[in-house]
Amino acid sequence: MMEPFLLHPIGTIHTPFRQAVNTPIQPLAAEGVRGHIDLLPEYADGLKDIEGFSHLTLVYQFHQIRTPALRVVPFMDTEEHGIFATRSPKRPNRIGLSTVRLLEVQGCRLLIDQVDMLDGSPLLDIKPFYPRYDNRAPEGVRIGWLARNENPPLTQLRADRRFED
Amino acid sequence: MMEPFLLHPIGTIHTPFRQAVNTPIQPLAAEGVRGHIDLLPEYADGLKDIEGFSHLTLVYQFHQIRTPALRVVPFMDTEEHGIFATRSPKRPNRIGLSTVRLLEVQGCRLLIDQVDMLDGSPLLDIKPFYPRYDNRAPEGVRIGWLARNENPPLTQLRADRRFED
Repeated sequence: MMEPFLLHPIGTIHTPFRQAVNTPIQPLAAEGVRGHIDLLPEYADGLKDIEGFSHLTLVYQFHQIRTPALRVVPFMDTEEHGIFATRSPKRPNRIGLSTVRLLEVQGCRLLIDQVDMLDGSPLLDIKPFYPRYDNRAPEGVRIGWLARNENPPLTQLRADRRFED
Repeated sequence: MMEPFLLHPIGTIHTPFRQAVNTPIQPLAAEGVRGHIDLLPEYADGLKDIEGFSHLTLVYQFHQIRTPALRVVPFMDTEEHGIFATRSPKRPNRIGLSTVRLLEVQGCRLLIDQVDMLDGSPLLDIKPFYPRYDNRAPEGVRIGWLARNENPPLTQLRADRRFED
């Protein structure tokens, strides 16, 4: 099962962000930042009843990442960590996850808030956010190196140039 | 940017589940069910400092799904919904997300608890779970059709034969 396999984008995410610098890090830091999804028409049938959900988890490609890396100095620290111990976009397979707010469904266009990805990101999947499944481990969770700088102000959650090379 | 693109599995998830029937639906229903990840050795450098995290979000392929569908009658309802309004595995691109508990790191093997995927699932990414980013919308979240049957007992969260065709 270890052969590479093809993924087919189901649509495109449009946001105000053309480059990484100053793009919000995580939807948490993108309150009030609006964008939209243009789903390919052949997937329109899959949207039935999606308007009932307030939040959607988007699976997409970090399409502007050219050089994935196994060690990175992540945002929020000055030391190098393994890529799988960070949320850096420079990861193998370049898969991004963002849980955004759904504002309105207009046919194959979904208006969304809290967008933190670059304009033109190829969309791979949409999953409805369900707190019973997704809000995990309120007690006893350990967050490794992130505990050293656990709650920086939202205004600091902006990307810099480290994702550009 | 809408061309298909290749993903390369970074490892394999091993679990007790060889078929969908009776496999837990979501990690929530898999407390105490252990499995492991075998990461390919070429990605080992990416694990540095991962042991500090109690929970990891795994991105993987629902490799046993043969026929994706745009409308499904999901687990937890008797009516048809669009695939993007459900968590059914029969989705385009067949991407699964599960946040599991990390028990131990043994070189390229990660021992994990709360596994809800089939044995042999190709792993695409590992992201550390960080409640500040991931536990979303404690207030004001809307969950659409799921509200009709919001909290079935965990013993009901077991798959049936609907994923087999």
